[in-house]
Amino acid sequence: MNQYLFRLEFMVRDYELDMQGIVNNSVYQNYLEHTRHEYLKSCGIDFAAYTRDQINLVVTRAEIDYKFPLQSGDRFWVGLNTAKESRLRFVFYQDIYRMPDDKPILAAKIIGTALNSSGRPVTAPELEKALII
Amino acid sequence: MNQYLFRLEFMVRDYELDMQGIVNNSVYQNYLEHTRHEYLKSCGIDFAAYTRDQINLVVTRAEIDYKFPLQSGDRFWVGLNTAKESRLRFVFYQDIYRMPDDKPILAAKIIGTALNSSGRPVTAPELEKALII
Amino acid sequence: MNQYLFRLEFMVRDYELDMQGIVNNSVYQNYLEHTRHEYLKSCGIDFAAYTRDQINLVVTRAEIDYKFPLQSGDRFWVGLNTAKESRLRFVFYQDIYRMPDDKPILAAKIIGTALNSSGRPVTAPELEKALII
Amino acid sequence: MNQYLFRLEFMVRDYELDMQGIVNNSVYQNYLEHTRHEYLKSCGIDFAAYTRDQINLVVTRAEIDYKFPLQSGDRFWVGLNTAKESRLRFVFYQDIYRMPDDKPILAAKIIGTALNSSGRPVTAPELEKALII
Repeated sequence: MNQYLFRLEFMVRDYELDMQGIVNNSVYQNYLEHTRHEYLKSCGIDFAAYTRDQINLVVTRAEIDYKFPLQSGDRFWVGLNTAKESRLRFVFYQDIYRMPDDKPILAAKIIGTALNSSGRPVTAPELEKALII
Repeated sequence: MNQYLFRLEFMVRDYELDMQGIVNNSVYQNYLEHTRHEYLKSCGIDFAAYTRDQINLVVTRAEIDYKFPLQSGDRFWVGLNTAKESRLRFVFYQDIYRMPDDKPILAAKIIGTALNSSGRPVTAPELEKALII
Repeated sequence: MNQYLFRLEFMVRDYELDMQGIVNNSVYQNYLEHTRHEYLKSCGIDFAAYTRDQINLVVTRAEIDYKFPLQSGDRFWVGLNTAKESRLRFVFYQDIYRMPDDKPILAAKIIGTALNSSGRPVTAPELEKALII
Repeated sequence: MNQYLFRLEFMVRDYELDMQGIVNNSVYQNYLEHTRHEYLKSCGIDFAAYTRDQINLVVTRAEIDYKFPLQSGDRFWVGLNTAKESRLRFVFYQDIYRMPDDKPILAAKIIGTALNSSGRPVTAPELEKALII
């Protein structure tokens, strides 16, 4: 298993399951987003405050490998690493593991950027600091 | 713009927006899933009936490019094509365009497979027919 | 069946089902909200524009009777009527019927109000017009 | 504030907010459902196992008072009490309070019943025990 910069624990909630009795595909993106926002908060970056200041942190590409489904009652954790993709794009590598056996559930590469109110990519020093490790 | 095997029209619903006033990333996967299920239904394949028969159609990988966000009041359509990825895996190429200007919103490659009740990949003739064009 | 001021047709989407294979309770509120917003739009009131102008239309109370569950593949319609609850509160009566047999699915009374940016109830002439019939 | 039989702590996740920057109305039903399922689990009743055994615990009526909205970053807890509504119906009283100031956010009365595979109300001794205090 990889080393991670940040990790967050969750528990499956039954409303997240679909008729197959497993967590619906789209819900994993919720888990990943919440983990990114909590990571940013741990770096002093408040997503909501950015939004109010009209700096929109947006996802431009997601690559998600679904390895094994989560089910009712499962506990799990999301591990997160960051990297720089280009001058204006950053990457979050995010993996999900079931608890307590650390079975791999999902691996994702999420690419994002920051846009100002006219939709132009922008940089911000504190973002750089959080995202270039 | 590509030719598509199947297309489905939608309208953004306000509960799908997040605090940025745009459709949340995870919601696009809902649009894509609904379009796949409607496509399958048009081929005589009922996702719910498969689930009851313990054949689970699952996504194993998603690659999603977010090009431009949908907003309140937007109408859009999802175009779908299929391909065979390997003997047991199939691919849906799915693109979203805003209406009426056909502005590209999202492009996705969704890879899936069919699993039986013990989690083993299986094939089914009618699936083959729907997915190999 | 009642007469309705406004009606909107929907189709169940499979991601809205939970592990019981029926539409999850919370999802009906999404259907009801979307119907209210479309009704308001038909009266010239754009919920998103109101939000940008810092007039927040909010629900203060919901009473929902769940009569029969919607399932995969079901089509349905939501009927809507409005009434005045008090000087600053309005009511939406909203009922859901399955198609094509008009089986009653859900009946709701949703009470709302309009708040300005400091959280004070406000009135607006066009709202009055849409909501007092 | 009331005494509660069971309480569960949560944190708002940003994907739960809508364009008003507050938790969307429908999401509170998710919080309430998860709390009920965790309460039942604490009594030895597994909602998912019941579903597999074709005993469906369903909500028949919800009354929800929305008092003050939750926002990004808010922590909160849900308090739960139970009562018997009739021979075959039980009630959950569920209140939400913001942390750490215990500001009242929402008060709900959720009425439910247990249905067998043919949709008939049923009783089960362990349910009785969990729900009659």
